[in-house]
Amino acid sequence: MYSVLNYGHMAADGVRMDAYARAIERAVKPGSVVLDIGAGTGILTLLAVRAGARRVHAVDPNPAVWLIPELARENGFEGRIEIHHTTSYELTLPEKADVIVSDLRGSVPTHGDHFAVLRDAKARLLAPNGTLIPERDELFVSVFENEEMAGWLARGSAGFERRGLASESIRRSILNTPLADGGRLRASDLLTTSAPWAKIEYGAEHAPLEGEVVLAPRRRGTAHGLAIWFAATILGDLGFTTEPGTSMVYSRFVLPLVEPVEIDHGDRVRLLLRVDDQGQRWAWETTITTEGGDVKMRARQSSFFGMPTSPEALLRGSSSFTPLPSPLGERAKRALSMMNGERSIAEIATELAALPDTPDLPAATLLEEVRDLAARYGR
Amino acid sequence: MYSVLNYGHMAADGVRMDAYARAIERAVKPGSVVLDIGAGTGILTLLAVRAGARRVHAVDPNPAVWLIPELARENGFEGRIEIHHTTSYELTLPEKADVIVSDLRGSVPTHGDHFAVLRDAKARLLAPNGTLIPERDELFVSVFENEEMAGWLARGSAGFERRGLASESIRRSILNTPLADGGRLRASDLLTTSAPWAKIEYGAEHAPLEGEVVLAPRRRGTAHGLAIWFAATILGDLGFTTEPGTSMVYSRFVLPLVEPVEIDHGDRVRLLLRVDDQGQRWAWETTITTEGGDVKMRARQSSFFGMPTSPEALLRGSSSFTPLPSPLGERAKRALSMMNGERSIAEIATELAALPDTPDLPAATLLEEVRDLAARYGR
Repeated sequence: MYSVLNYGHMAADGVRMDAYARAIERAVKPGSVVLDIGAGTGILTLLAVRAGARRVHAVDPNPAVWLIPELARENGFEGRIEIHHTTSYELTLPEKADVIVSDLRGSVPTHGDHFAVLRDAKARLLAPNGTLIPERDELFVSVFENEEMAGWLARGSAGFERRGLASESIRRSILNTPLADGGRLRASDLLTTSAPWAKIEYGAEHAPLEGEVVLAPRRRGTAHGLAIWFAATILGDLGFTTEPGTSMVYSRFVLPLVEPVEIDHGDRVRLLLRVDDQGQRWAWETTITTEGGDVKMRARQSSFFGMPTSPEALLRGSSSFTPLPSPLGERAKRALSMMNGERSIAEIATELAALPDTPDLPAATLLEEVRDLAARYGR
Repeated sequence: MYSVLNYGHMAADGVRMDAYARAIERAVKPGSVVLDIGAGTGILTLLAVRAGARRVHAVDPNPAVWLIPELARENGFEGRIEIHHTTSYELTLPEKADVIVSDLRGSVPTHGDHFAVLRDAKARLLAPNGTLIPERDELFVSVFENEEMAGWLARGSAGFERRGLASESIRRSILNTPLADGGRLRASDLLTTSAPWAKIEYGAEHAPLEGEVVLAPRRRGTAHGLAIWFAATILGDLGFTTEPGTSMVYSRFVLPLVEPVEIDHGDRVRLLLRVDDQGQRWAWETTITTEGGDVKMRARQSSFFGMPTSPEALLRGSSSFTPLPSPLGERAKRALSMMNGERSIAEIATELAALPDTPDLPAATLLEEVRDLAARYGR
């Protein structure tokens, strides 16, 4: 979960914030109603108030939103902001919003369920001629060479090798796991041309993101992985790109190649990319052919091979799984049914502990279980 | 949640791993039964098998444990490892363990509930004369000067300031939030002597960690915060320290000072530190006096002031809160009661959607809610 410092660093990103601040100045009219989804510590909320909004609804399940009333007081913005410490799914508003503003991206805009969040919010909470900010993101890909990144990934199995242990399955798992580059990739690391491969229109229905591109070398080198970034259209001509070489709060996203490949002039790199709505499941297929048409490398990779699992766990994650409550689930079911507005959390934990089939857990553990349940499912 | 790469980098830390590997060689006898709590990708499990264990139980709620059977095959260790994809609280064993090995630390050993985990495991799962690894950790503190760290924290409110917005509450929140140093602190950053202030004996009962120390300047400089680290006793004379200047997988823990203070020869720094069992709530009180006895600075800081909250949210987090289920909680309660081993996750989501008082949520959202519930509370 984001900390106040994380939010602060997002707000300190001048490129990102200039686009958002100017979009708010342009879209928010005196008297507008604004909804800030994923408001965090509320910098966009404050800017919307300053732009003249009659009322700004700031929604976020992160408790950081409780700083916003204090910031409003510091800035003389009292009385125009309403805090909703929840998800936008649970939110109903007494009035439609003229402007919805949000930034729910991670290193890639497929982070979390924010396509669904903005579809739902546009349908239920935005006025018919209202403005949704941002408008769209376009995803790009290129092939990179970066020894530091390759070394970082190789260190994942080095501990096993140093103890004389075979670790091919560790290596395979790591090289099938997408990860943020943490600022490691430079513009000069790009070995090939780049190309857009998918587009996200916010608020609209869309299929899983996928695309096929063919890239040409810009120089010789060793390919270590695919770099993914996005170009954001915030509002009209306002936007930014997170391509390698930019220094923004966003990292690049990396899809490692399962083995390094020498890239030569005349080669062609064909990529097939696919990712689900939640950004959880990635698949990337790489085919590299020489000028003469010989296949130098072909690899099908997927985050499915990156996350260890068992047949049992796979089954449990599928929609056709028929679950029974685990012992923890039985306790959760009982604790939820004891939540009647009269028993305290401590009393529920004590009653749970007294039930004959509750295992002999430390009292603090049961209390923490009930506290977690109440935080997640209580009001 | 840790990824396979995270676990790999833990295993690649030679200092940490030398201590653990030698402790396992010393404690595990041919025929031993070993329990590896928080096994991750299982390097300690594999080392215990190689040391002659008859059986190793590897327990972890992280799905990374499903790599261990593959690693066992790669290394010819089949048939001697049992995987328990759960928490140790839910674990019962057919036999007591002769050796329990674990490393559940984050940047500080107060991360998560691992004191309680090891108390419970020692009481229920360890043979009477069994060996618990690690034995103890001792916590240290010193005062540091580091402009980069101070700048990193100051950037948290820079975005607000750049837009002409007051942000004192952001600043106060950030400077009351403990954080990992991410490798920023060097040995030369330490302005004062250091001192131990608390000790953790694993497997034993203990009170909340607290201590008072008085530190003397080693040089002049500007104090930016307190650096916390630990010295681990893994087994007997085997151990390591994570003090600034060491390059381990562990970061230092930083408690920022609410304002920078010039430290001079002859000053005295008195620190009162306290942290709860879960490492969630930190309090630190700093008093700096001159050689003449004048108080230069006194500050009481606490992570309570770092986490924004509201009176309502505070109440909800207390043991005396009497919760009612939220709309999400009502759905969770119903979904849990529908889990009878006959309905699939998809069927439960469809039945939920059809209930008259379920809000009009996207089908994918309800499916995800039920999937989450089944992952957390199903079997």
